[in-house]
Amino acid sequence: MKLTSHPRFVTLEGGEGAGKSTTLAALRDYLRARDQEVVTTREPGGTALAEQIRALLLDPHHEPPAPETELLLMFAARAQHVREVILPALERGAWVISDRFTDSSYAYQGGGRGLDAGFIEQLEQRVVGIQPALTLLLDIGVVHGRERARGRDLPPDRIERERDEFFERVRDAFLERAAQEPGRFRVIDATQSIATVATQAVACLAERVEG
Amino acid sequence: MKLTSHPRFVTLEGGEGAGKSTTLAALRDYLRARDQEVVTTREPGGTALAEQIRALLLDPHHEPPAPETELLLMFAARAQHVREVILPALERGAWVISDRFTDSSYAYQGGGRGLDAGFIEQLEQRVVGIQPALTLLLDIGVVHGRERARGRDLPPDRIERERDEFFERVRDAFLERAAQEPGRFRVIDATQSIATVATQAVACLAERVEG
Repeated sequence: MKLTSHPRFVTLEGGEGAGKSTTLAALRDYLRARDQEVVTTREPGGTALAEQIRALLLDPHHEPPAPETELLLMFAARAQHVREVILPALERGAWVISDRFTDSSYAYQGGGRGLDAGFIEQLEQRVVGIQPALTLLLDIGVVHGRERARGRDLPPDRIERERDEFFERVRDAFLERAAQEPGRFRVIDATQSIATVATQAVACLAERVEG
Repeated sequence: MKLTSHPRFVTLEGGEGAGKSTTLAALRDYLRARDQEVVTTREPGGTALAEQIRALLLDPHHEPPAPETELLLMFAARAQHVREVILPALERGAWVISDRFTDSSYAYQGGGRGLDAGFIEQLEQRVVGIQPALTLLLDIGVVHGRERARGRDLPPDRIERERDEFFERVRDAFLERAAQEPGRFRVIDATQSIATVATQAVACLAERVEG
């Protein structure tokens, strides 16, 4: 099975404190100003059931899932998200901007947990089937990103509590994927101010829209 | 990757009203009378996290999962169950008797929902890795089983609410698997009294133990 790339499907990837939320809002506002319908969403989550799966995945008070359990829960949530939210929106002509998507599984469960990328690819082909046309990777060093994230009110979730070495592997895996698919990825230096990151992200999107 | 068959791992399979619970208790009592440690468990479930996944799967009031979501949730729960409960018990020399295991995914998500058996096999090899040495299939016609199950106090769960055609496909898939692996499966006619079913099941186990 091949993956179908959707021209109006955009994803944001990156670690903690990279500025994904502000950037997502800027992309949404850019498209809405051009009278486009935009659906913004996130992973894991995006539907009621997928958000319940998210809670099982991220709550630090639950029994920790085995790496394989974590991977399958991520893809279970994604399978639902694609069918209930993403595909219906794309099919009616809307844009979809998702905070994280399949690249996060390659980075966190593949790079971070060491699960086989070939198996992740099988899951992607079998239960996801679609790919964004544009993925913006907001890249920032682990320590720098963590310092920024510390400003938030929320306590860290189960995955955010991992050690720095884990996040170094996640970052490397993201950068490797970006290098392998230069047509789909744009890497943005997220050590810049969040306003600059958002402006550069909008410029990448504008290239596709107006290009 | 090959599946490892464990001599002290026994599973019970079959539809509603086949007498699995009574049979499981009889098998457990038989082994305990021979001073064996026995762990009895069930799927989906068997650990705290897996039971929470079970609740997402079976609660009829939740958003219904897509077939692919259902399959991955089943295997996410199973991955956890194998690692947290089944393998540790087998490794310390205990017997494990599980009410349902991977064969149920082939029957319900494969036969019932029409998902590809090749994909289910990949999941089995990648995240389960083990197989019971003995699987007792308690076989009963769909209408007959449903009449028996009606005597219970519990309201039907989401999957139990499916139509008879669904359960006919499930039954066919179970019988097909039994025919393909005659060394592992024993098919018991579950239209007999539940006491007879349990006695025959114990006789199948005794053959292996005393063999």
